[in-house]
Amino acid sequence: MPEFGPTGRRIIYKDGKPCRSCNTLLDFQMAMPGKAARPAVIAADLTAPVTVVEDKQCPPDVELLGRSSWTLLHSIAASYPANPSPIQQEDIKTFVSIFSRIYPCWFCADDFQAYIKKNEVQVKSQEAFGKWMCEAHNEVNRKLGKKEFDCNLWQQRWKDGWKGDN
Amino acid sequence: MPEFGPTGRRIIYKDGKPCRSCNTLLDFQMAMPGKAARPAVIAADLTAPVTVVEDKQCPPDVELLGRSSWTLLHSIAASYPANPSPIQQEDIKTFVSIFSRIYPCWFCADDFQAYIKKNEVQVKSQEAFGKWMCEAHNEVNRKLGKKEFDCNLWQQRWKDGWKGDN
Repeated sequence: MPEFGPTGRRIIYKDGKPCRSCNTLLDFQMAMPGKAARPAVIAADLTAPVTVVEDKQCPPDVELLGRSSWTLLHSIAASYPANPSPIQQEDIKTFVSIFSRIYPCWFCADDFQAYIKKNEVQVKSQEAFGKWMCEAHNEVNRKLGKKEFDCNLWQQRWKDGWKGDN
Repeated sequence: MPEFGPTGRRIIYKDGKPCRSCNTLLDFQMAMPGKAARPAVIAADLTAPVTVVEDKQCPPDVELLGRSSWTLLHSIAASYPANPSPIQQEDIKTFVSIFSRIYPCWFCADDFQAYIKKNEVQVKSQEAFGKWMCEAHNEVNRKLGKKEFDCNLWQQRWKDGWKGDN
């Protein structure tokens, strides 16, 4: 079982098998037993007709799952009430807490749970929750060596659109 | 305020303003006051350098939000235990229930709540939950005039990959 994939990342295994939600598709395919030659096939697939891709989409890899989840979470923050009721505050806390336990990439989920323990979810207002979510996202950006986002701009990115664009 | 957007869909308003999470970006931009000429600008933007798009991404429209959310929900089903504990069953029911209340596109959320009332979430096993989710997705596909998915194949689409591809 290879330790690193073609992207240079360490391959994540669970129960001796590569974890689809925890690796990029390229690394996952490379790590599948007897599939060392697979990346060349993937590269060729990129030129295949779009209909093939649409009809037979693969389960999401760690990157698509991450992007999709942040899109939902930030959008939920963007539509969270400015002045939430106690029930709405409790709901959103419960949602984030369960999310952190059931997120399919298990090591990402572990990291998120640890983050929540140290940085309590802020749910008193839309602004507080939106900023908390932005900072949680930046923690992941830092870990992945990605650019951090200026959290003063979270509403323009996730709620209102960019000033001057609308 | 226009009733229909350039995509031919009815434009959704809330409190007299077009709802960003409930319309396609094209329809939303068209419905923004004084922005009737906007779609031409959007079309031009498609040829702009990718860095511009990445640095200043817009809040997701109803389609990106939908795709992202299904990606997360089906992936959660794909990693749900084959034999979940009572606590895990309770967690997933609560998660789906809160999700149906806080989903940013409010009329989609209303529809989803109504669906759950008529079709109780099945959480006794991964297979039951994965199939329930697939059928819920098909209900939306039908409403949008999209092709239905064969729910016997949900594990290949969302969990294991297509037979013969791996």
